[in-house]
Amino acid sequence: MMTQRDAALAGKITKAMTLAAQKEGLAPEAIRRGLAEGTLVVPANPGHVNLEPAAIGKGVRVKINANIGTSPHDVSLEKEQAKLAAALRYGADAVMDLSTGGDLDALRTALISQCPAPFGTVPIYQVMTEANSLDEVKGDWFLEMVEHHARQGVDFVTVHCGVTRKALPLLAKRVTGVVSRGGAFLTAWMRRHQRENPLYEQYDRLLQIAKAHDVTLSLGDGLRPGCLADATDRAQLHELKILGELTKRAWAQGVQVMVEGPGHLPLKAIKKNVRLQQKYCANAPFYVLGPLVTDVASGYDHIAGAIGGALAATEGASFLCYVTPAEHLKLPEVEDVIDGVVASRIAAHAADIANGIPGAADWDLSMSKARRALDWPAQIRLSINPDKAKRYRDLSRAQEDQCTMCGKFCAMKVFDEKFES
Amino acid sequence: MMTQRDAALAGKITKAMTLAAQKEGLAPEAIRRGLAEGTLVVPANPGHVNLEPAAIGKGVRVKINANIGTSPHDVSLEKEQAKLAAALRYGADAVMDLSTGGDLDALRTALISQCPAPFGTVPIYQVMTEANSLDEVKGDWFLEMVEHHARQGVDFVTVHCGVTRKALPLLAKRVTGVVSRGGAFLTAWMRRHQRENPLYEQYDRLLQIAKAHDVTLSLGDGLRPGCLADATDRAQLHELKILGELTKRAWAQGVQVMVEGPGHLPLKAIKKNVRLQQKYCANAPFYVLGPLVTDVASGYDHIAGAIGGALAATEGASFLCYVTPAEHLKLPEVEDVIDGVVASRIAAHAADIANGIPGAADWDLSMSKARRALDWPAQIRLSINPDKAKRYRDLSRAQEDQCTMCGKFCAMKVFDEKFES
Repeated sequence: MMTQRDAALAGKITKAMTLAAQKEGLAPEAIRRGLAEGTLVVPANPGHVNLEPAAIGKGVRVKINANIGTSPHDVSLEKEQAKLAAALRYGADAVMDLSTGGDLDALRTALISQCPAPFGTVPIYQVMTEANSLDEVKGDWFLEMVEHHARQGVDFVTVHCGVTRKALPLLAKRVTGVVSRGGAFLTAWMRRHQRENPLYEQYDRLLQIAKAHDVTLSLGDGLRPGCLADATDRAQLHELKILGELTKRAWAQGVQVMVEGPGHLPLKAIKKNVRLQQKYCANAPFYVLGPLVTDVASGYDHIAGAIGGALAATEGASFLCYVTPAEHLKLPEVEDVIDGVVASRIAAHAADIANGIPGAADWDLSMSKARRALDWPAQIRLSINPDKAKRYRDLSRAQEDQCTMCGKFCAMKVFDEKFES
Repeated sequence: MMTQRDAALAGKITKAMTLAAQKEGLAPEAIRRGLAEGTLVVPANPGHVNLEPAAIGKGVRVKINANIGTSPHDVSLEKEQAKLAAALRYGADAVMDLSTGGDLDALRTALISQCPAPFGTVPIYQVMTEANSLDEVKGDWFLEMVEHHARQGVDFVTVHCGVTRKALPLLAKRVTGVVSRGGAFLTAWMRRHQRENPLYEQYDRLLQIAKAHDVTLSLGDGLRPGCLADATDRAQLHELKILGELTKRAWAQGVQVMVEGPGHLPLKAIKKNVRLQQKYCANAPFYVLGPLVTDVASGYDHIAGAIGGALAATEGASFLCYVTPAEHLKLPEVEDVIDGVVASRIAAHAADIANGIPGAADWDLSMSKARRALDWPAQIRLSINPDKAKRYRDLSRAQEDQCTMCGKFCAMKVFDEKFES
């Protein structure tokens, strides 16, 4: 079994590379080179049979991920299928199933079979869900669960390998402690068992599992800041440095790696955080959650995340995990998924334009020409969410060539001296 | 009659300065100095009797404006009153009435009497609304209308004084021409009458009107780019340079001035645009519309605007005009107003934190402590829109100390080893 990275290092262009390149309008060689350098990943577990591979990293469009999944309070395969369908329809490039309620294997199997996008999971959530107590969890379980997910065809897994015992004292002064569920479970487990994190201690074994299934490792930031006040603190940077070491060890084994990042960051700290990740992790793709530029936007965290995400991606982050309006309040519903996906896409697209990704600004130019021509069908079609644009347009009850905002005072018409007509 | 600027230049601290200073937790002298330097405005028409003055500019919190108003297709005082109430409730620092349908004087009088925030208008809209044709509009009308609004107690007016005949040829190559309604009307008027813009030609007369009522001039960017492709082009910069000259002429007459800016701007062009405004306009407060970082976000332009606004305000813009989800599609409803206000406030607040405005990050710290304590009532109260946060929380049907997102897997609880409880 040769991973995409192994193939790239051997100078071989795979079908997955070719398909991912087509999506970007790039030569397959550009994808191969990025994979070999580690600046790109193409998460593609051969067990994910209906996968349409995509590249994440430097030189390609910024990608966005939508998290779906049950919680102990809300278990419905139908609802998760609806969220998956909505995420894909509105433009998610990848989907993570973060289920923590119900029959997780059945949910995952059903969802992955309906997901042509790269599919990710956080295997430790299943450990957490199946465990009755911290005491009964043996260290091997964490690794066995990764292998279990890999066998089911998962393309990338979040593994919090950088949460180590040395970091525990660094957490004492934090305002919000640990806000990653996986990170919190591991810190609690380490304290209870007085043992090192198995995902760190047995990292070579983890790499063998990842290599055997070409599962891309998404090195989780279990110690990410949960508020602006904790941002870029010693605990966060301690973990990031370890993730950098682990990135290189993965590369040496032919394993694909992304590195996860915050979380909550003041706007002015975003550039520095991206630079630090690039430095410590040798330009491995940076996968950020938001980042949220304020802690107070509950109900609107998709907007706080879009601000942070646009800036992070402009500075070099490659992969934006969406945040929905439900964040910090409840499990998202389908409408929240749509709002989260669209907000992230706006951020990613703004960054693609800023980064000069070929073709990115063409979309905007087409839209602007349609505006100038008062071509409403084209404006609807070119909107980031044509369904919402059409709904609003239909409410506008306007004449064919104008809207209820300006009516006859439409600047486009007045400029053409069509004021009197 | 002494304007706030006159008073500031004479070393006098007015009641309006003191009240505006209190809102910021600053010494009144800081407001006086900013007014004298021109880096701050305190729009405060003595005719606006119920005004609670606020400062806009350097060294104070970034302010946000909400546009309300009828259109020819949608005329209802009740609806506009509801929008005004919503804008104020959710945190607009200023409100502009952009009505173009119905009895504009009656609407304005009613709205201003219910608005303690600085109240702005675009007098040319009333010219446009009352005119039956371009031909019948005499140049004096533009100035008389400004005076008419000033007499009604309007605190600031948008006047497109920088749209001049010299700029007309520069518009030929634009993708979207002129997208400012006032700018479009003036360009059409100038072409039809073969005359210079009266607001430019009779600028000294305009200054006398502004001075007599201490109406703050918001020098409109009638030639702002309507799409990314037109951004920072010759027409835009030609106008901006003129606005810089007009700023200094206003200052010499004791008139307060803000300068308006785009509009649509690629993310990477925002810093440059703020720098150019600061340079040409000698650090007069910069009042931006968005800016939108993509043209394709119809239905979600509040998000595209929040991204651009956060960045612009971090670079030095002082005043963000909100954009609602209805932009480019229809006249906003109350719900759109709320979404627009909240999105702009998130952007402004993120910038306040970035700019180190004293106290700005305290809000976030309080929220984060409430999160760590699982204190839900405090989290709701501290949310940027407590009403929406409460609605979501109520839907969460969770136990008192957790939510349906994570349930018993709440990181806060697991970190405290409360996993089994």
